[in-house]
Amino acid sequence: MKIGMLGTGLVGMNLATKLVQTGHEVKIGARTKGKKEAVDWVNKNGPKASEGTFADAAAFGDIIFNCTNGQHSLDALKLAGENNMNGKVLVDVANPLDFSTGELRLTVCNTDSLGEQIQRAFPNARVVKSLNTMGSDVQVNPSLLPGDHDVFLCGNDQKAKDQVTEILRSFGWKSIIDTGDIKSARGMEALLLFWISLMKKFPNEYFNYKIVRKTR
Amino acid sequence: MKIGMLGTGLVGMNLATKLVQTGHEVKIGARTKGKKEAVDWVNKNGPKASEGTFADAAAFGDIIFNCTNGQHSLDALKLAGENNMNGKVLVDVANPLDFSTGELRLTVCNTDSLGEQIQRAFPNARVVKSLNTMGSDVQVNPSLLPGDHDVFLCGNDQKAKDQVTEILRSFGWKSIIDTGDIKSARGMEALLLFWISLMKKFPNEYFNYKIVRKTR
Repeated sequence: MKIGMLGTGLVGMNLATKLVQTGHEVKIGARTKGKKEAVDWVNKNGPKASEGTFADAAAFGDIIFNCTNGQHSLDALKLAGENNMNGKVLVDVANPLDFSTGELRLTVCNTDSLGEQIQRAFPNARVVKSLNTMGSDVQVNPSLLPGDHDVFLCGNDQKAKDQVTEILRSFGWKSIIDTGDIKSARGMEALLLFWISLMKKFPNEYFNYKIVRKTR
Repeated sequence: MKIGMLGTGLVGMNLATKLVQTGHEVKIGARTKGKKEAVDWVNKNGPKASEGTFADAAAFGDIIFNCTNGQHSLDALKLAGENNMNGKVLVDVANPLDFSTGELRLTVCNTDSLGEQIQRAFPNARVVKSLNTMGSDVQVNPSLLPGDHDVFLCGNDQKAKDQVTEILRSFGWKSIIDTGDIKSARGMEALLLFWISLMKKFPNEYFNYKIVRKTR
């Protein structure tokens, strides 16, 4: 499948690499074409890897990943171009993190979420929030952690969620929990406020949530 | 130990019963003495159970539990009386839930928390946030769910957290995660925004979080 990867930070690069490794063609997009990090990534990842602007990547992808800085995601997606996203699955991995005060806070929380903002701004994109609740290494390699643990997703379009589920399975995810429509992005993003406490406590980012349920 | 239980809702009653069953003397407190639910509970729970006003319960307890409705906790604690709480462990189980709009939102979130508000309002109480991240039946009976799963706590006073840890162990909790100082209440309360998505999805409240970590 053709994937447009918006964002050339750690999260976007790791996901782009994993997507190439699992057989996809991936174009990573930044504000400008020819960004050094993007070109380096292309050179390392062979003929299935390419780079360009946000709009180039969005136009290229059958599925688009938003891995831009959550504070600027709406701007980045405008640059990507609504027409390049209409009807496509848009996987929103971003978190609306604001560290400007020295402690983590979210730029949107409780009564709204970045996932919802993106869905409202691009009503014809099929937004699926996923993978935002864990560190980058765990996203692409769930077997880093022992036993079962969960990746969550939510969105308004069931077929879009099915497609994302398939990609997650190809990454090695076994337990994939659909938490509902895009409003559930509020909870998925709010998990970061908890995650940051654990991150301060534990020696590294190699942890994740598992939902334990009474099974009978 | 003598426990003052503020709140006569399901959460407070279940915890009060468990505390009596594990050997403590418990006085439950409500806005008025002689509230029917409180008197019924006392009649069912034998000589270690008693009831009174918020102030009666707070004065009685060496440890105080706040299980009042989170929207009204600060008012209830004022009625309990600062002098009755000074120097004591105050276990804050409440969540600042607001369902008035038809969907769950928190009355405080992201940049502050109920746990912090309580600690600020009663600086000489030793506030420990705990048990707010799960349903009432799981709080008092962790073995309802299979395998390991976690209860969290946070607060500024280590000895207070140690005392709460001991009580949690007596309830059957094996995995107790200290998430930091009282600021970590932001994350613990924000978990409710996620919990509500799961609650809508699952058939009952019998689920909980487990943090899975890379152990080597």
